[in-house]
Amino acid sequence: MITSTGNQRIKHLLLLGQKASQRRAEGLFIVEGRREVEHCLAAGFMLRTAFVCPEIATVPFALPQHTEIVPVSPNVYERIAYRGGTEGIVAVAEARNLTLHDLRLSSSPLIVVLESVEKPGNLGAVLRSADAAGADAVVVCDPLTDLYNPNLIRAAVGAAFTVPCVACRTEECIDFFRNRGIRVLTAQLQDSSLYYDTPMTGPTAIVMGTEATGLTERWRRAADAHIRIPMLGHLDSLNVSVSAAVLLYEAVRQRKMQKK
Amino acid sequence: MITSTGNQRIKHLLLLGQKASQRRAEGLFIVEGRREVEHCLAAGFMLRTAFVCPEIATVPFALPQHTEIVPVSPNVYERIAYRGGTEGIVAVAEARNLTLHDLRLSSSPLIVVLESVEKPGNLGAVLRSADAAGADAVVVCDPLTDLYNPNLIRAAVGAAFTVPCVACRTEECIDFFRNRGIRVLTAQLQDSSLYYDTPMTGPTAIVMGTEATGLTERWRRAADAHIRIPMLGHLDSLNVSVSAAVLLYEAVRQRKMQKK
Repeated sequence: MITSTGNQRIKHLLLLGQKASQRRAEGLFIVEGRREVEHCLAAGFMLRTAFVCPEIATVPFALPQHTEIVPVSPNVYERIAYRGGTEGIVAVAEARNLTLHDLRLSSSPLIVVLESVEKPGNLGAVLRSADAAGADAVVVCDPLTDLYNPNLIRAAVGAAFTVPCVACRTEECIDFFRNRGIRVLTAQLQDSSLYYDTPMTGPTAIVMGTEATGLTERWRRAADAHIRIPMLGHLDSLNVSVSAAVLLYEAVRQRKMQKK
Repeated sequence: MITSTGNQRIKHLLLLGQKASQRRAEGLFIVEGRREVEHCLAAGFMLRTAFVCPEIATVPFALPQHTEIVPVSPNVYERIAYRGGTEGIVAVAEARNLTLHDLRLSSSPLIVVLESVEKPGNLGAVLRSADAAGADAVVVCDPLTDLYNPNLIRAAVGAAFTVPCVACRTEECIDFFRNRGIRVLTAQLQDSSLYYDTPMTGPTAIVMGTEATGLTERWRRAADAHIRIPMLGHLDSLNVSVSAAVLLYEAVRQRKMQKK
């Protein structure tokens, strides 16, 4: 059992949590708590190591045989756990670096594209909305985005593992949609139709920019239609995960109505 | 100019930010940054005092005559400002304690009810969704809720002032809706219809419980209809501000379609 926070493996674990460059170099990331570990395993990720505090983890975890289990003392667990109440487990998992061509899409895919991401927590919240609405994938057109940032994983409450997520360049993404016959709907306030007047029953990608600056010209030009959520109050923007949910669920509604 | 963080007025300001009991006892709350101050003034709140750091607040604020302006030094401002980049102003405003009977409702009101609130930030985010969708009011049936918590105000990005918000008891709220002919739609997974199959064109209150425990039996029994957002992925819940937006915008869509 590791009882010292100065232990080399504990230092390495903390580094993985703190540094995107370390995660990228090793292809590893951190999962904390029972719920996240379960979603991560269910989605087929490989857990390399599980640091478990026996005093806290009263519920036994059904971890795969290949996962090394490292017991840690409560003081070490307190140091490595970011949140309280995470049931005594912090694990190291192997990253997947999916490309667009790895995606297994349904016959009428529904995809969310974010042009860039202001905060990892926002991307995590978008993944949660995408999971709920049954979206096929989330694509981030900003190759520097770290899909395994701890704040992202936390905000996604499991959806970081259940929803396929790809980081790629904008041109690559536009070409992919064009070749697959996926309609590009860009969310923008100017020169746009109300989202509920826009058909979303066919293969659809919903593209959103940042709250602050919106979408770049490249995406606007690549659009098959421009859509907007009407802003009926005094403010001029919605949180990106809220906008994503409103637009995705309209696609869900239209697809359901079409089947009736 | 106040130059010491030990100044009595600065200590009092910090206390107002930290303690709900202090805010309640004095009927005061804190507004930080230019955008919040502007929304607060536009909504007719009374600003009692504005602590302004001349070194930072380069843009002059058009503050009302009755507002006392207290200059502070940069080190004091740094102590009283919770966020960075808030343009050199932290103000003290007078709370409004609205009751249900103070609400001025439209002919076909759209109201969000939260049975209780887990985190102030969640309520703030719901207010932001409610503003965007043009809801008439948000009601929190938990009289202990502090509507002027700094995290709430921050998450609402102005909507804490633009959307009328009432804290009251559940029975009072149910009676109010009954007397005004407002239909009660409770969001719940069991025994419910899909939200988009449920009419929301008439006077409507959408009632939501907490993510963790859902709604109590009192509200379920008071409901005219039970509605749910279909969960099409692997997770079993949405963030409350996301759910609120999806449901409110369906009401917006239906009302728009009805007019066509």
